Amino acid sequence: MPRVTGRARTEMAAPLPGDLKDLYRAIHARRDVRGEFTGEPIPAEVLARVLGAAHAAPSVGLSQPWDFIIVDDESIRSAFAEHVGAEREVFMATLPGDLATRFADIKIEGISESTLSIVVTYDPGRGAPHVLGRHAIADAGLYSVCLAIENLWLAATAEGMGVGWVSFYREAFLSGLLDIPGPIRPIAWLCVGPVSALQPLPDLERHGWRQRLTLDEVVHHNGWLGGRPADRTLAPVPGGGS
Amino acid sequence: MPRVTGRARTEMAAPLPGDLKDLYRAIHARRDVRGEFTGEPIPAEVLARVLGAAHAAPSVGLSQPWDFIIVDDESIRSAFAEHVGAEREVFMATLPGDLATRFADIKIEGISESTLSIVVTYDPGRGAPHVLGRHAIADAGLYSVCLAIENLWLAATAEGMGVGWVSFYREAFLSGLLDIPGPIRPIAWLCVGPVSALQPLPDLERHGWRQRLTLDEVVHHNGWLGGRPADRTLAPVPGGGS
Repeated sequence: MPRVTGRARTEMAAPLPGDLKDLYRAIHARRDVRGEFTGEPIPAEVLARVLGAAHAAPSVGLSQPWDFIIVDDESIRSAFAEHVGAEREVFMATLPGDLATRFADIKIEGISESTLSIVVTYDPGRGAPHVLGRHAIADAGLYSVCLAIENLWLAATAEGMGVGWVSFYREAFLSGLLDIPGPIRPIAWLCVGPVSALQPLPDLERHGWRQRLTLDEVVHHNGWLGGRPADRTLAPVPGGGS
Repeated sequence: MPRVTGRARTEMAAPLPGDLKDLYRAIHARRDVRGEFTGEPIPAEVLARVLGAAHAAPSVGLSQPWDFIIVDDESIRSAFAEHVGAEREVFMATLPGDLATRFADIKIEGISESTLSIVVTYDPGRGAPHVLGRHAIADAGLYSVCLAIENLWLAATAEGMGVGWVSFYREAFLSGLLDIPGPIRPIAWLCVGPVSALQPLPDLERHGWRQRLTLDEVVHHNGWLGGRPADRTLAPVPGGGS
């Protein structure tokens, strides 16, 4: 059988079964939430399912180098929110006037409004020194942690919740705040909880900060310079979301 | 409403609706596939849906810093497989005897058996210099690319396919092979295609290389040293998968 794609079949694929539609709905409805958190409680078993989804992610050498720190303490969240506010000013000061004006209207976090936060960390020592698949690519462990974060994000979305990744912080500050020891790195501060709704458009698109690319713009064939194969038309759906 | 989790509700949540079961099925059935690729073709519209799922991932500052290079050229795949074989030997040489013996039985890639490969890259220049959310964390763009990879992986799984992430390579070699220009980094070589089956256990667990941790082992509360809240029992399901 030829090892090419698309060429051997031009007929339509079978209609999507239910589970496909549901998966794609979660993937496309998912948003990076700032303003829509309600603060309602998260049932324990829902939180366990969402964390279980994260923990089921693939990891280099089965190292599972992630940890999840659930943060619901008010004083920790306030201290973090204050730090994030200061970093917002740092970023704002780097912007030319027109961008600064646009940025001023954009909410960048829902730390205090969300039900709780989950800080996800990376432990490079887990499974070391012989991590299968990491000898040539040091960052491979870091990649695994991000796969877990996306599982968490999709599971939370399917559970009717929202997730907002806050990245306006210095790693050293967050490590200090949560007593995260030396070699372990905080990778994400995620605000999590029920939402009033998910926006149909990413916030940054809605605010005119950036537009989504079409899929065609990011697909190449057999090399960086290779265009799409002539016999394969990729639907120009907007996709990239924040 | 108190911003704590789990405390306010101890009753069972409503039974999972269909879409949740389906999402969790994809998340938990997903495997890092090496030996089960059939080489059958991928219909064009299936490939477009899977790439569309990847492209719908969240990204820092809506930068969408990913590109997808579809590789079905036999000579490129052979050259890559040869390089991976050499890197396998490099890793093997670092292992003590007992681990080397165990590693000898483990298949690390399905490059030639899979239908095609998708190389995912990271472009730090996209949306620069004012990437919203990246001024304090340089790696945030890299993280976005990995979120896209997990979307791709789950979509492919739900479509009845398998994905295998090959990381036994040097980035410079792969950049050269696919003419990927300077600042752009290859992040993953993914083997993709229909499979005969997905293994119930991760390959590395099956071969006794590493075991999965329980969820309890990776959850903390309000700080690295904080245990689980007493009122929240997280099910000790094995989860981490490769």
